[in-house]
Amino acid sequence: MSFQSYFPIWDQLQPHQQRRLLNSLTAQAVKRDTFLRGGSKDCAGLLLIRAGQLRAFVYSEEGREITIFRLFEGDLCLFCAPCVIPSIQFEVTIQAEKDTEFWSIPVGVYQQLMAESAAVANYTNELMASRFSEVMSRMEQFMWRSMDRRVAAFLLQEAAIEGTCELRITHETIARHLGSHREVVTRTLREFQGAGMVQLSRGKVTILDKERLTDLRA
Amino acid sequence: MSFQSYFPIWDQLQPHQQRRLLNSLTAQAVKRDTFLRGGSKDCAGLLLIRAGQLRAFVYSEEGREITIFRLFEGDLCLFCAPCVIPSIQFEVTIQAEKDTEFWSIPVGVYQQLMAESAAVANYTNELMASRFSEVMSRMEQFMWRSMDRRVAAFLLQEAAIEGTCELRITHETIARHLGSHREVVTRTLREFQGAGMVQLSRGKVTILDKERLTDLRA
Repeated sequence: MSFQSYFPIWDQLQPHQQRRLLNSLTAQAVKRDTFLRGGSKDCAGLLLIRAGQLRAFVYSEEGREITIFRLFEGDLCLFCAPCVIPSIQFEVTIQAEKDTEFWSIPVGVYQQLMAESAAVANYTNELMASRFSEVMSRMEQFMWRSMDRRVAAFLLQEAAIEGTCELRITHETIARHLGSHREVVTRTLREFQGAGMVQLSRGKVTILDKERLTDLRA
Repeated sequence: MSFQSYFPIWDQLQPHQQRRLLNSLTAQAVKRDTFLRGGSKDCAGLLLIRAGQLRAFVYSEEGREITIFRLFEGDLCLFCAPCVIPSIQFEVTIQAEKDTEFWSIPVGVYQQLMAESAAVANYTNELMASRFSEVMSRMEQFMWRSMDRRVAAFLLQEAAIEGTCELRITHETIARHLGSHREVVTRTLREFQGAGMVQLSRGKVTILDKERLTDLRA
């Protein structure tokens, strides 16, 4: 599969824009856990994901993390280069959750395309709106939902991403995603286990009763 | 002052686009507390504020509110018509905080301008990024900051908006802005009063020591 087939508005570019974009690309691969962005000076390029998975998160002052969105194959990581839109005035850290391959589009090239093409600008708009919607949903969960509902939602999301009910994930990692503490996650998971909804073992959470977890999340 | 002088990218529109936009506008005025948007079907127009102040907030399931951003003279209220960008998939309620005058731009007219003009699309992008940045900042405050720091930040923001240290505001209203309960706000304000930072009286909070509130917020 080529860049052309991954970039959704390829056909709406002029031939000279297509050439300019293709000539600017670098294909890269990073290992799981690599930081792709962190810190305000880091604004090298927008990444179009060919394979793998990225996680965007924010830190609290005490160093706690909370995942605000995730990106998958075919997604363009706009916030990997937030300087592309000057009004983006917040810090997001981006880390590979799995081994990830991507094309990097230099900021200057993308900015020129946005300035020239309403199609590119509107596509970027939709991308930002999607991330905004995810963040709003995450914020509402964080603000108003009890921990057991948030853990249930997270387990179901993981199962959907991985395509399995046997999740290889530690309590520490779940806590990092949810901006919580390991002890709190462990307590919640033990309650779930007591109620027969999950089975816990070393580094693994197995979902036994998806339906009840879904009811709990709702 | 005319619409032309309030709309920042007026000069980047073609004459026929300027005419189309002008012909589509309706000038309106609403009283304080009027709801300008609430509910997903409500997507009449984008509002450009000529005078006044709007507040955007979300509700919890139990009906608690939290203010996510505010709009002032010259701001365009994109989220007054979220359907203009289909990927905006969250609900925001917009209410006038003061008597407010605005021009309403029909969604269809604005969408056509975005499709035709990279300048309009990129302007919209910057608008959304600004709101996104405010929401991220609000989320980080809500998630990680203690109540006293959040109340301090809110009082200082109010003082800046109103241009006075004598704030005519109830504890209930502060609680609504911060997604908290009146009792919690009252307790915090009494602590501030005990420390000599504010003076409380019926329906009024007077800031006595801006510097210490600023230190506290930091």
